[in-house]
Amino acid sequence: MWDFKYLQSAEKYNEAEMKTRDRILEMTLKLFNEEGVAKVSTNRIADELGMSPGNLYYHFKSKEHLVEWLLRRLESDLTPFMQSGDTLVALDDMWLSLHLSFEVIEKYRFIYTDVDFLLHEFPRCGERIRNMTLSAVETARTVCSNLARSGVLKAEGAEIDDLAFQIVFTSTCWSTFSRLLSQQDASAPGYAAYHVLTLLSPYLVEDQRHYMNYLRGKYLK
Amino acid sequence: MWDFKYLQSAEKYNEAEMKTRDRILEMTLKLFNEEGVAKVSTNRIADELGMSPGNLYYHFKSKEHLVEWLLRRLESDLTPFMQSGDTLVALDDMWLSLHLSFEVIEKYRFIYTDVDFLLHEFPRCGERIRNMTLSAVETARTVCSNLARSGVLKAEGAEIDDLAFQIVFTSTCWSTFSRLLSQQDASAPGYAAYHVLTLLSPYLVEDQRHYMNYLRGKYLK
Repeated sequence: MWDFKYLQSAEKYNEAEMKTRDRILEMTLKLFNEEGVAKVSTNRIADELGMSPGNLYYHFKSKEHLVEWLLRRLESDLTPFMQSGDTLVALDDMWLSLHLSFEVIEKYRFIYTDVDFLLHEFPRCGERIRNMTLSAVETARTVCSNLARSGVLKAEGAEIDDLAFQIVFTSTCWSTFSRLLSQQDASAPGYAAYHVLTLLSPYLVEDQRHYMNYLRGKYLK
Repeated sequence: MWDFKYLQSAEKYNEAEMKTRDRILEMTLKLFNEEGVAKVSTNRIADELGMSPGNLYYHFKSKEHLVEWLLRRLESDLTPFMQSGDTLVALDDMWLSLHLSFEVIEKYRFIYTDVDFLLHEFPRCGERIRNMTLSAVETARTVCSNLARSGVLKAEGAEIDDLAFQIVFTSTCWSTFSRLLSQQDASAPGYAAYHVLTLLSPYLVEDQRHYMNYLRGKYLK
């Protein structure tokens, strides 16, 4: 289970300490994204910040704690999109919401590229990532159901379940795949959005499909 | 560039040595799949085999060489599917070919789950993985074009390109996603095949779609 007591302990820090914590988390995020969680030690992070390992340890007791705090930030950044499922009834609302959430995912991309390492090494973080992913599938299902109800999308039951799965799969794994293909630009959030819109395309009613092809086309320029 | 001289040097080994090489590669594959490339050292592999590090070094000079040889095996196992693109004109040929190639991918799954690490650490292997992935996209495009020509699939031009991309993306990244969702069974090759068939579904002509739903349904039992 998540250790809330530990997480809330941040409140004990004063303003200067909070700034230091922010600097540490920002550097950690940068290094994790660039080099992967496995390779970056807490000593390395301290070193990059010109800080003693003891000072870093005062703020974060281990690499696992750093990952937990970054996960917490990702969750908080994604919350608006997770909660917007019920209000998205038009295609361009959905598209905007997708695009913005892909920007968040790209910002914390180490979580998805290093997911195997995280699941193995830090089971508590793994559990948190799983729950977040399952919530995202739930949100995607709600959005697709609403689009179907408002006549934008023609799909039902199992089709909606499969679509919701594929939307979240594409959103979370696309940046790994695009790096594999060596397409530097392809890891841009827009390209992930393009591929999610492509998944929806065959299920859209005709006039909406034309509109979506217009939206998708903008990503390819 | 790939060092063919090095690769062909395997021929210098006698039969007993070839068996030792096989044992080393099999143990390496097992450990890479279970624990990830980053964590498993060559000393650890030697240790698991009850072999001296020097003996392992005689056969493989570094972790990178081990990865290269495993990649070579993956490529050779995938060759029949890569070459079958032109002969696949019916839905169940394609389904069988997909299913069998997913079994191969699952066998060497560390390559896809650790792709970021491999691209960073072993650029020569990264290049090889990229070329293999681009060939797979090419094969998928050929298969989809053939299915369209034989009237099984209704898609053209850009739709076929997008489909080919998404088929290879799903094939190579699905096992990572299914582990993220903690669905042990979901990493089975059948589940990946189910999701690729789902991608094709909306593009199939009606009687073929019914047949495919029957094929897909078998994976969910």
